[in-house]
Amino acid sequence: MKFELLSRDASARRGRLHLGHGIVETPTFMPVGTSATVKTLTPEELRSARTQILLANTYHLWLRPGRDVIVDAGGLHRFMAWDGPILTDSGGFQVFSLRERRKLDDDGVTFRSHLDGSEHRFTPESVVAFEEALGVDVAMVLDVCVRLPAEADELEAAVTLTTRWAQRAAAARTREATALFGITQGGLDERLRERSARDITALQFDGYAIGGLSVGETREEMERAARFCAELLPPERPRYLMGVGTVRDLIAAIDCGIDMFDCVYPTRCGRNGRAMTRAGEFHIRNAAYVRDFGPLDQACGCSVCQTFTRAYLAHLFRSNEMLGPRLLSYHNVFMLNRLMEDARNAIERGDWSRFREGITQRAFPAAPENLASREHPIT
Amino acid sequence: MKFELLSRDASARRGRLHLGHGIVETPTFMPVGTSATVKTLTPEELRSARTQILLANTYHLWLRPGRDVIVDAGGLHRFMAWDGPILTDSGGFQVFSLRERRKLDDDGVTFRSHLDGSEHRFTPESVVAFEEALGVDVAMVLDVCVRLPAEADELEAAVTLTTRWAQRAAAARTREATALFGITQGGLDERLRERSARDITALQFDGYAIGGLSVGETREEMERAARFCAELLPPERPRYLMGVGTVRDLIAAIDCGIDMFDCVYPTRCGRNGRAMTRAGEFHIRNAAYVRDFGPLDQACGCSVCQTFTRAYLAHLFRSNEMLGPRLLSYHNVFMLNRLMEDARNAIERGDWSRFREGITQRAFPAAPENLASREHPIT
Repeated sequence: MKFELLSRDASARRGRLHLGHGIVETPTFMPVGTSATVKTLTPEELRSARTQILLANTYHLWLRPGRDVIVDAGGLHRFMAWDGPILTDSGGFQVFSLRERRKLDDDGVTFRSHLDGSEHRFTPESVVAFEEALGVDVAMVLDVCVRLPAEADELEAAVTLTTRWAQRAAAARTREATALFGITQGGLDERLRERSARDITALQFDGYAIGGLSVGETREEMERAARFCAELLPPERPRYLMGVGTVRDLIAAIDCGIDMFDCVYPTRCGRNGRAMTRAGEFHIRNAAYVRDFGPLDQACGCSVCQTFTRAYLAHLFRSNEMLGPRLLSYHNVFMLNRLMEDARNAIERGDWSRFREGITQRAFPAAPENLASREHPIT
Repeated sequence: MKFELLSRDASARRGRLHLGHGIVETPTFMPVGTSATVKTLTPEELRSARTQILLANTYHLWLRPGRDVIVDAGGLHRFMAWDGPILTDSGGFQVFSLRERRKLDDDGVTFRSHLDGSEHRFTPESVVAFEEALGVDVAMVLDVCVRLPAEADELEAAVTLTTRWAQRAAAARTREATALFGITQGGLDERLRERSARDITALQFDGYAIGGLSVGETREEMERAARFCAELLPPERPRYLMGVGTVRDLIAAIDCGIDMFDCVYPTRCGRNGRAMTRAGEFHIRNAAYVRDFGPLDQACGCSVCQTFTRAYLAHLFRSNEMLGPRLLSYHNVFMLNRLMEDARNAIERGDWSRFREGITQRAFPAAPENLASREHPIT
């Protein structure tokens, strides 16, 4: 793996990531393909929606279809027929959200499947081995993620264990073609964030994620923490803010100097009838759209906006037709990917601050609670 | 509308239908786009799956989104972004399946919506006006459809009223670009079928459908009736057998001299995990496919069979991922459209009987009851 930092504009960065299955221009958004599928979309559509890299979930794939099926298929890329780069999360976030169903010890975490109650165990070593067996381009180390707000001692223990596990994950690595990223923790506690960043970056990972955000704190707290954390990370390595995916949050995080993002938000919104645009979000089931024969988003050039009207999409959602979630998921993913392209161009041009202000000055209605990005980590 | 009868091989016919939105080579299968969408598929995919003409349902579109929305959109083609030919059924079949919710009189039928209980009324005139307003290429007249087995007097009354309504529909026609097809009824009663065919063909419709089959009779009864009915229809007009869509039934019906077919079967199977091939059907959720890394159908060249494995499709269905129904619906529609192409070529070559035998000699497990094509006419 190689990362080039091509240009900067204030803290915003324009970079290029060379991975086994291709090049990723940063800043980049990674659509989430939890169970080896970005819900409703084909790999071909993801490409045409300008997707560069996907995220897949270790927790879900471990349980179903399981390691052997994917390995026998020739790896995750061939299994899901996506030949571009893939990053897998470590399953840490999902497992720690299981609360009643998991038991943490110093060596790892034992949990029961949300599908059938069967018992499984993640250790830093078993997770790296799983990700390498899948043949992904970027593997994340197993971390201990704490939901906010949290007690100081709980946060501190999570930071300590996350570092110890990161050391073991780094030592367990066997496959050069799979880059390994460390994850920093520490909640909103700057002293802990400093310690975590120092300890994790000492391990010389290929890239660094900021974990433990977008887990219950306010937007302002998240932005402040993301900025604080980004500055603690080495500039020559890619920086990844996990679980971020609204237009406003992405722009704010790029402004903090972050390069990579993932979130179920655009596809979950798509399935629920929520259209994303740079000028805000709206719900396509609203009565206003039943006779609106304009495109979903006047400013978008995606094939959905070129082909179908709001009235037709409203009809599909009101009729519970699967084509509705499909088309809206496509649009939302395309829209975020184009936003990232334009952000990259603005940084290159030295025009980032004007670009950022042009977007964040518009009214962005907050996402409804039930779509909040990290509220449903498992299903 | 123009229909050319290009060649015959025994009773099987190879024809060409010239419609407002394009040419349809016959025999042809029409995928069903009940609510202005062939479930899970885009118009672009329908084209690439070699679909020539779609069927849409008057009953469903009348209720939602309703005539005005479609007219304001510029017609059904523009509303759903399908620029090829469309045939609409008359809603008769759906309304008569409502049993407790409809009241028949000599002038028409009053029914309550399965969506919200609101009251609506179909007359031969109102249905033709609706179909013409939608701008479809082929409109079906309102008929009285009887579920089999049925009493002789009920069947006879249905035939009598169907003829009277057909006369009124023919008189109500105002738009030349929308061809109008008559529907013959009579159940399995040959005397009634003869009377119905004589009365309906006397009205000089652009084409003729055989209605009232595939509604509860055995496969053998249906084949016998279809053959008997087809021979009563004028050879110079297209013949349409409503509600037929399994491989075996399509081949049998082409052998009877029928030119057009529609059925929800391939898309309903697709959503339920049932893969159709010329050599039979199978359920992709079966344990046998979890580690089967071959294509869905070795003999199929569709993009799904070229791209994805049975193991991946099995995973999608086991994970309740929407991509599964999408991919399998696509394959099933493609497979039937290719079957029709090959049937046309076989008739042209004078090789129909060998082609037919090659397909029907294979083992075709019957479809499970809950997927039977006409068991769920409304939802």
